[in-house]
Amino acid sequence: MIIIGEKINGFIPKTLKAIEARDGDYIKEIALAQQECGADFIDICAGVAPEVEMETMEWLIGLVQEVCTVPISLDSSDPQIIVNCIPLCSQPGLINSVSMEEGKTGTVFPVIADTDWKVVCLTCNQEGIPDDGQTKFAIARDIVACARSYGIADDRVYIDPLVTTLGTKSDSMVSFVEAIELIRAEFPEVHITSGLSNISYGLPYRRGINMQFLCLTMNAGMDSAILDPMDPYMQSVLYATNALKGNDPYCMEYLGAYRDGLLPVKPE
Amino acid sequence: MIIIGEKINGFIPKTLKAIEARDGDYIKEIALAQQECGADFIDICAGVAPEVEMETMEWLIGLVQEVCTVPISLDSSDPQIIVNCIPLCSQPGLINSVSMEEGKTGTVFPVIADTDWKVVCLTCNQEGIPDDGQTKFAIARDIVACARSYGIADDRVYIDPLVTTLGTKSDSMVSFVEAIELIRAEFPEVHITSGLSNISYGLPYRRGINMQFLCLTMNAGMDSAILDPMDPYMQSVLYATNALKGNDPYCMEYLGAYRDGLLPVKPE
Repeated sequence: MIIIGEKINGFIPKTLKAIEARDGDYIKEIALAQQECGADFIDICAGVAPEVEMETMEWLIGLVQEVCTVPISLDSSDPQIIVNCIPLCSQPGLINSVSMEEGKTGTVFPVIADTDWKVVCLTCNQEGIPDDGQTKFAIARDIVACARSYGIADDRVYIDPLVTTLGTKSDSMVSFVEAIELIRAEFPEVHITSGLSNISYGLPYRRGINMQFLCLTMNAGMDSAILDPMDPYMQSVLYATNALKGNDPYCMEYLGAYRDGLLPVKPE
Repeated sequence: MIIIGEKINGFIPKTLKAIEARDGDYIKEIALAQQECGADFIDICAGVAPEVEMETMEWLIGLVQEVCTVPISLDSSDPQIIVNCIPLCSQPGLINSVSMEEGKTGTVFPVIADTDWKVVCLTCNQEGIPDDGQTKFAIARDIVACARSYGIADDRVYIDPLVTTLGTKSDSMVSFVEAIELIRAEFPEVHITSGLSNISYGLPYRRGINMQFLCLTMNAGMDSAILDPMDPYMQSVLYATNALKGNDPYCMEYLGAYRDGLLPVKPE
């Protein structure tokens, strides 16, 4: 599983407070802690007013690169901000995200075409966010075709089939899993990811829904997730599911995660 | 999911202590608590020396029937003890368990043939416990044929495909799931159950493995489990997986479990 650490995000109140107070120590602390918990990318989302987004992104990128060796995930809804941030990064990372709406691919894809940057692509378009697996897959196919037209190889594309909220739509995961299976069958090299906590929006004990959603989507073929790698419960799902699927002989990775203190029960 | 509450079992140290001290209040308390947490059967396993097993079973059955309305699961490795306990039960319950070894079916099946008793059947035989899904399925097929020969309908048969320990066998769940899928395809009316905690034997944070094993086996078609219904983490898996699979419109059952205090986070 490719883990995109989500904690440096201005939409999280504690992180916003640190951003507004320019508390660089806190930002560096959670950047490094996420890396130590196994994050493959450190997501950076300023979550501030547009007029200060660029300078905030620049400040955050500098802090993260001071302490982390893993690459950055540039997270903004404004494709121009993303393009402007690319030269600030010391190594190719991940774009989070583009979609087939509003010419986002047209802004971002030419810039990253001849680089090693990877890109999260959402399955939405001008008509909105589709609910059903077939339409999610159809949009994914359009995105992959568009990426290929710029010479972006399939293994640089991370499709996010945009999970809807279970509380209002009971086949939310069923259609998400259908999309995963269709994408996996047609595009074996493409990565599939999810900002998965949306599944539990509005429900009590969200962690319980998020954990089983992660388990079942990993089982269906999702190979990446945007989550808090410092959450020992989510870590337990990642390691247990991997072992149960037969991918961890003698549970060596599971035992390592336990010894490293990543699981909810700490070693004595 | 059909839940078989496992707590009245002399192999659990706290329960054994209560049995040895003839602490009937404790037994009644955990019997009723399991029913209130949704147990469909209350399993009773004396776990004492053979010469006192029958009298212990009789005492335990009496206590459980004082407080519970749900039926009993008679749990003994001695088929004659099980047969002798049947007349003590006020309503048909579950036999836990028989197998194709040592003539167990020959002792139990004739007695329950013309009743409403249900029976857990293990996929082992004279040659031991098979590791692979195909052999587990082949034994399940023999069991179902044997049950049918006594007029025991498929929906009274609970196959337990006997999960082996993940720590020593990394395809333990993979072969278990293969068995589930083969059984489910050939015998749609048969129930599939598991004393699932064996999967995590010898590993740290066993709950983490048990939870994802329950989720993935439910996903594959298992419709019963032998577990502690008072464990809020296992309850969260039962309710979350059911909802994620699309079986709980508007998450009404999940919300009900939260309000009833069954989940790890209690209502305010």
